[in-house]
Amino acid sequence: MMKMDVLTLFPEMFDGVLGHSILKRAAEHNAVEYNIVNFRTYADNKHQTVDDYPYGGGAGMVLKPQPIFDAVADLQKKSTSSPRVILLCPQGEKYTQRKAEELSQEEHLIFVCGHYEGYDERIREHVVTDEISIGDFVLTGGELGAMVVIDSIVRLLPGVLGKEESHQSDSYSTGLLEHPHYTRPADFRGMKVPDVLTSGNHRLIDEWRMKESLRRTELRRPDLFDHMELSAEQKKWLEEIKKEHEEH
Amino acid sequence: MMKMDVLTLFPEMFDGVLGHSILKRAAEHNAVEYNIVNFRTYADNKHQTVDDYPYGGGAGMVLKPQPIFDAVADLQKKSTSSPRVILLCPQGEKYTQRKAEELSQEEHLIFVCGHYEGYDERIREHVVTDEISIGDFVLTGGELGAMVVIDSIVRLLPGVLGKEESHQSDSYSTGLLEHPHYTRPADFRGMKVPDVLTSGNHRLIDEWRMKESLRRTELRRPDLFDHMELSAEQKKWLEEIKKEHEEH
Repeated sequence: MMKMDVLTLFPEMFDGVLGHSILKRAAEHNAVEYNIVNFRTYADNKHQTVDDYPYGGGAGMVLKPQPIFDAVADLQKKSTSSPRVILLCPQGEKYTQRKAEELSQEEHLIFVCGHYEGYDERIREHVVTDEISIGDFVLTGGELGAMVVIDSIVRLLPGVLGKEESHQSDSYSTGLLEHPHYTRPADFRGMKVPDVLTSGNHRLIDEWRMKESLRRTELRRPDLFDHMELSAEQKKWLEEIKKEHEEH
Repeated sequence: MMKMDVLTLFPEMFDGVLGHSILKRAAEHNAVEYNIVNFRTYADNKHQTVDDYPYGGGAGMVLKPQPIFDAVADLQKKSTSSPRVILLCPQGEKYTQRKAEELSQEEHLIFVCGHYEGYDERIREHVVTDEISIGDFVLTGGELGAMVVIDSIVRLLPGVLGKEESHQSDSYSTGLLEHPHYTRPADFRGMKVPDVLTSGNHRLIDEWRMKESLRRTELRRPDLFDHMELSAEQKKWLEEIKKEHEEH
């Protein structure tokens, strides 16, 4: 069972996401154990202050080192392994499916989520093992980033996804974007399903799906081809697709 | 006041995130109104089914068009503006701070979150105006993506961030990654704050901060320089930094 500790000043923010759907089921089936900790409880000053003004001036508050140093040390002391300590921040490594797969192999992860202007640099230098950014946008705190990383990891843990779900041809696992999907009715208010999908000819269906995956990737995310080895057939189809779109 | 509707099968997932911290305060101060809708209530079949098997075979379920078409039409009918309809999916446009700024100008946004294998393509073609992906990783559903987009937009709405908070030199707003922050104590268990920050010399402090921003950006995200105009002084410092790191 994987253990996940989360250090946050807003523990209730996690209730909805960890308490429903697949993340909840994963905990019920003992694939993962979540432990949400308000690190304010580790503050060793009378008023449980966790932030202070920055040295050198400027507006905004900075998280003090002491509460996070002591919270992480306490969680590490209780651990049977050597947990990675993950800081969510805009300066971090860009998060990808590859990193999710890497982290899903660990026994124990500690997530550190901050609000306010920033973290005291000594936390970064002496406590944190991984800094992660989920993207080039600004959020009100690290909590949503931690939830995103947790969700992407938990669904990879053994036994978490059912047979149906794990059959997903996940966009970032196959390398290509997914082909379009259609379900009933075949004619919805005059909008029709492509004939090939109701033809029963599975060779043609597979070919159509592969071509549409290639087309969507070419039109929307051609950068994904940089990391892929295409087959000779895929290369031929991709050339056809490029020609079609040049003509239009 | 901005209006945000969210179509989801797991409305309770949103409670924690929208009910705390800055997102809660924004609603209390009437900067935004959240309306979380379970689109299963729009299913026009007896069993309120929202998904079905894919045409052409394969495992996994596909969201049927009818519940989402009718839910969006109902929400649009009640709107005084022409709301954008945002689908969270791995095939979407990569989300950035620029998109957050663009969407923060709208009066009304409708978010569509799916679980399962995918959406019927007719939803994409006829209902959705914007497809967004928050990053190259796989999540169990669109809900966390919607929360991330909502959070990044709401903090940009007028009056939502306090004076202290809005003073943030946000990493993706200035273009550079942030410099390190330090707060008290100046000596924490032998780990010391850089002397310059306690010197009281504000010209030297500003210079140190700019250099460390440039250094961190050069070391971690040199791609960010592609979209920036550096001053002559910044260019000189960046050259010095590059030399320093070549020597080590």
